Amino acid sequence: MTRLKYADMDCSIARTLQIMGEHWSMLIVKNAMFGTSRFSDFQRVLGVARNILTDRLNHLVDNGILERYVAQPGGLRQHYRLTPKGRDLTPVLIAMMQWGDRWTVDGDNHPITVVNRNNGQPIGTIEVVDCRGISLKLEDLEFVVSKETKEAA
Amino acid sequence: MTRLKYADMDCSIARTLQIMGEHWSMLIVKNAMFGTSRFSDFQRVLGVARNILTDRLNHLVDNGILERYVAQPGGLRQHYRLTPKGRDLTPVLIAMMQWGDRWTVDGDNHPITVVNRNNGQPIGTIEVVDCRGISLKLEDLEFVVSKETKEAA
Repeated sequence: MTRLKYADMDCSIARTLQIMGEHWSMLIVKNAMFGTSRFSDFQRVLGVARNILTDRLNHLVDNGILERYVAQPGGLRQHYRLTPKGRDLTPVLIAMMQWGDRWTVDGDNHPITVVNRNNGQPIGTIEVVDCRGISLKLEDLEFVVSKETKEAA
Repeated sequence: MTRLKYADMDCSIARTLQIMGEHWSMLIVKNAMFGTSRFSDFQRVLGVARNILTDRLNHLVDNGILERYVAQPGGLRQHYRLTPKGRDLTPVLIAMMQWGDRWTVDGDNHPITVVNRNNGQPIGTIEVVDCRGISLKLEDLEFVVSKETKEAA
C-alpha cells in the first residue's frame, strides 16, 4: 500500500483511502458484495496474480473488512466474506458504480443494475441528504473543521 | 496511474477507479470540494511534491473532473475548480468520509462535520435507498448483470 504523508492527517477520507484506496482492494470488496467467496473465484473474475490476490486478501482481513470462514463443517477450504465493517462500504461502492454509470458509460447501457430484491425495483440514486432526507448539492454544504484538524490543515 | 487488466472489463466501479482510484486524485478532489483552487494551496494542504501534484492535476483536467480558470480578468495565475462531472463525485467522497468517521476515528471526535449551510444542521448518513427513499441493506440488494457483462465476468 502506498504510504502517504497525508494519511497521518486527521482526515477520514485519507484514512479510508489508506485502507481501501488500492484498486484491487476495492474490486475484491465489490466482488465479495456480489457473493464471491473463494480464492479461485476472486482470481478468475479479477484476473489478478495469486501473490497479489493473497496480499490484498490478507490486507483486507488484517483491517477487519473481510473474515475467513469454513463453508462446510469439517471442510478445509477457507472462504472469505465481508464483516459488518466491510458491508458498511456498500454505499461507497454503489456511489462509485452510479458515478461510473453516469460518466463513463455510453447511454443507458449500464453493465450492472442494482435492484431491491424484495420487489425487483431498481434502487434510487445515492445522494447527499439533509437530516430530513432532502437532497443537497455541493453548494449547499459547509465543511466545519474541528479545531485540532485546522492546525494540521 | 496503475494499469489494470480488470479496467477493461465492463464494470463502472473499475472505470471509476481507473480515473479516481489513486490516493492523490481523490484527495485533490476532496480539497477542491472544500474550496481549494490554487496550485500552491493544494501543495500546502496535501504536502505533495510539485511534480506529482502537476501530474495529478493534469490527469484530473484531462479526465474532465477539474477545469482551469483565471480568477481575475487579465490575471495570469491559473486556478482549478470542479466541473459538473467532478462535483458529481460529492456523494462518493462524503460516503468515504462518513465510513472513515464510523470505522477509523475513536468516539465521536470527527475531524470534519458537514452541515447544510442553509440551516447549519448536520447532513444525514449516506445510504443505499429504494426508489421511495427507504434505506436498503446489502442483503436487500440484487445485482443484475447485463448479458454482455456476464460474458466478461
